[in-house]
Amino acid sequence: MYEDRIRHAGLRGRVVTAEEAQAWIQNGMTVGVSGFTRAGDVKAVPKALAAQVKKTGEVRKINLYSGASLGESDPILSESGVINSRLPFIADAVTRKAINRGDIRYMDQHLSHTVEILRTGVLGHMDLAIIEATAITENGGIIPTTAVGNSPVFVEKADKIIIEVNLAMPLNFEGLHDIYIPQDRPSRQPIPIMNVSDRIGVPYITCDPDKILGIVISNESDSPSDLPPADAETERMAGHILELLSHEVRRGRLPATLGPLQSGVGQVANAVLSGLRNGPFEGLTVYTEVAQDAVFELMDAGKVAFASANSLTLSQSMQERVLTQLDAYRDKMVLRPQELTNHPEVIRRLGVIAINTALEVDVYGNVNSTHVGGTHMMNGIGGSGDFARNAALTIFVTKSLAKDGKISSIIPFTPHVDHTEHDVDIIVTEQGIADLRGLTPRERSKEILAHVVHPMYREALADYVQRATARGGQTPHLLSEALSWHTRFEQTGDMRLAELVGTVNK
Amino acid sequence: MYEDRIRHAGLRGRVVTAEEAQAWIQNGMTVGVSGFTRAGDVKAVPKALAAQVKKTGEVRKINLYSGASLGESDPILSESGVINSRLPFIADAVTRKAINRGDIRYMDQHLSHTVEILRTGVLGHMDLAIIEATAITENGGIIPTTAVGNSPVFVEKADKIIIEVNLAMPLNFEGLHDIYIPQDRPSRQPIPIMNVSDRIGVPYITCDPDKILGIVISNESDSPSDLPPADAETERMAGHILELLSHEVRRGRLPATLGPLQSGVGQVANAVLSGLRNGPFEGLTVYTEVAQDAVFELMDAGKVAFASANSLTLSQSMQERVLTQLDAYRDKMVLRPQELTNHPEVIRRLGVIAINTALEVDVYGNVNSTHVGGTHMMNGIGGSGDFARNAALTIFVTKSLAKDGKISSIIPFTPHVDHTEHDVDIIVTEQGIADLRGLTPRERSKEILAHVVHPMYREALADYVQRATARGGQTPHLLSEALSWHTRFEQTGDMRLAELVGTVNK
Repeated sequence: MYEDRIRHAGLRGRVVTAEEAQAWIQNGMTVGVSGFTRAGDVKAVPKALAAQVKKTGEVRKINLYSGASLGESDPILSESGVINSRLPFIADAVTRKAINRGDIRYMDQHLSHTVEILRTGVLGHMDLAIIEATAITENGGIIPTTAVGNSPVFVEKADKIIIEVNLAMPLNFEGLHDIYIPQDRPSRQPIPIMNVSDRIGVPYITCDPDKILGIVISNESDSPSDLPPADAETERMAGHILELLSHEVRRGRLPATLGPLQSGVGQVANAVLSGLRNGPFEGLTVYTEVAQDAVFELMDAGKVAFASANSLTLSQSMQERVLTQLDAYRDKMVLRPQELTNHPEVIRRLGVIAINTALEVDVYGNVNSTHVGGTHMMNGIGGSGDFARNAALTIFVTKSLAKDGKISSIIPFTPHVDHTEHDVDIIVTEQGIADLRGLTPRERSKEILAHVVHPMYREALADYVQRATARGGQTPHLLSEALSWHTRFEQTGDMRLAELVGTVNK
Repeated sequence: MYEDRIRHAGLRGRVVTAEEAQAWIQNGMTVGVSGFTRAGDVKAVPKALAAQVKKTGEVRKINLYSGASLGESDPILSESGVINSRLPFIADAVTRKAINRGDIRYMDQHLSHTVEILRTGVLGHMDLAIIEATAITENGGIIPTTAVGNSPVFVEKADKIIIEVNLAMPLNFEGLHDIYIPQDRPSRQPIPIMNVSDRIGVPYITCDPDKILGIVISNESDSPSDLPPADAETERMAGHILELLSHEVRRGRLPATLGPLQSGVGQVANAVLSGLRNGPFEGLTVYTEVAQDAVFELMDAGKVAFASANSLTLSQSMQERVLTQLDAYRDKMVLRPQELTNHPEVIRRLGVIAINTALEVDVYGNVNSTHVGGTHMMNGIGGSGDFARNAALTIFVTKSLAKDGKISSIIPFTPHVDHTEHDVDIIVTEQGIADLRGLTPRERSKEILAHVVHPMYREALADYVQRATARGGQTPHLLSEALSWHTRFEQTGDMRLAELVGTVNK
């Protein structure tokens, strides 16, 4: 049985049920799992674990490390109370609430940092890795599915391994991955990716078969990632970015093929890429963490020549299309570990154009990507810092308003900073583009006031800046008022002074 | 004349006086100069420019780009009013005041970013480069002096070049530099530094002789960088770091030779390195921006096997010693452009241990390195971000108190963030060490409260954290109080509540 999926004959006897496998996960263990942004996550064993704990009421707390967010496993495991610690990224409401209550220890990390921190030993020992596979090779190598995540290093570091072979993943995933682990210091060599299409490793995760405890057979698609259709504001933001890119090409500051594109997860990022379908750019490349639907639309339209990603995070319909036509993308795509997709070395060498989402931006261009109200975790910083710091052009996007105008995303002072002014080139809202490159903080505030803040909040923000500037400084502020927009929102549910409420459409 | 210093015969006729050379610097020009942290800066031409402007009262405003801070030229040029824009780092009181008044446009940059930004074209065109040299080679190559800075790229980009050949710099500087400029994208290759001692370029800055307008002969030492002797608190901080490093070696988390050391400029950084003289570590290496006195003390003591740096920023007495004994360090030292000393690619590959100074640190480990009171520029971020983000171990140091206890350097909320919690592993004050690795923000606050805050402020800070935590969140804060320590200081000159003033020695 499963000769095509488990090619190492000696391993075929290790097939177990998910119920049997979950028993290997013991209280206090540190467990590394496959999965990145809903793709390629293990599905059967986490569910079986949650079901067992629910049934017996036993206490089993684990430290759960992944590539990024999982699909259904995240809420299921969080709900069942088995998570002690979680890293490096989440995007699920149940987990988020538990984190903000303090019930789950959450370490928010740059996605390129996780394996480096793991190697230092300060996170302790990894007991178990649970990895989704398309198949297992003759030598025990693990062929991943729709994401690579941190799986190669988890497999290397974990004492024991459980593999979920997912029959829903087509066998011709084989060959789409490029697995490479940098050597340990002091013998570490350069990462030899000079073009997005360079393959530098092998198409499977090397694995000692003796470490494989058991193999679970699953048959389940990734949790789909259906995005709401782009609204008018999102399309305006996408339009602004396309205009900016055209402008840079005309000025000779970008080549006609732009640079390798990275875009964060979500509606705007997807809309920007979608917009390139009708744009003038040809021979585009993608060097990103997450390939959403738009990347495939662009490949289909002949606009994108090659895409390097970590995961395929697709809608239901795009999943069906891509997984049945994998061979069509074989020479246009590679999936790599996040240590490579997010590595400062490669991002800076290639000259990536990075487009990521901000929660809010202060009037000098400091960005909060993670903490609602400065205190409550939304998802995590993800790879945005890896890209923002090292890209050739760093763009942050946000709608200028939230909550029907009760919140301005452009504020005097941000109550949490993930990306400092030094790492932010361009801010885009539906209002326009603030090009902060080569400007001092005082000039940045003028650009932001002129182009990206919503008109409803412009006067109040300009007044703050003006009075602050009268007091001097490189980055003028009035500390007694800096957070007043946020405290007003806490108190009244609206950042606006009372006399302005209701003026959103003026 | 000067055959040994100007070996390109055709260039010997271009010797001019500094007074003649300064006339080439025209109003509105962008000028790139050599110099990094008081070392290797051009000396004669800036002085002549300032004198001329003072004499005539003429308006000549330039954009002045350098490697980092200059020596005497910074205050002289700022005072003379010739600076329109300045980047990427300063460390001089006159310039600082002009920046904070808004009279000098200052772009504070990661030191690895400057040449990348210059290449994009958004900073405009570089008209002139003025570079200090030990000598000019037969083919017009420029042999730098005590710093390399951004000079290689300035020479490449500038229309015209003025060279100051400094006779005070010994001729045997030749061979100590390693000059390499990464190729332009998309042909950029890995930077092949695998060990701190690897030489990957040539010992001079390649220069088209036709671009050389003139050569000025100078004879002047670098402005000395005399540090105050380490005080008791500084020595305690250095002791804490040595203890930490020993602990990491015992735990097997660092090799006995540690990792390549980077330390920022100043008293504490110098004291830490000095402390290694009597420590157990052998075969140390240094991969840093600035080599201060301690690096040479360690080489002399046989503790440091090799040091890679950008500049030699030395006290008067160490300058005299090193410059007369350069040959003794020839096989133990290399000076490189800051694009290499500060490159994320190399820092991450080598596993650098980074020690930098914070102005203040919040209770979750976010660091302000640049803005006094959140608004007024101190010096700039320098290379601290390049190292903090990419090092294998990132340490920030600060005394727990400033201004006789009127200021706590450990505060509820920092009014400016240069380094986010994600990039900060260890905080050291004279009180002790907060090891933040692998901790959630709430746990980080406990570690900071227990180990690094001054006892005088501990209770107030613990009270803030406790009340904030009651409101929940990943990073608990009370926004209405978050900046109250700073606003109290603005109002009363003291961060302490009135009843605590005077308790510093309790």
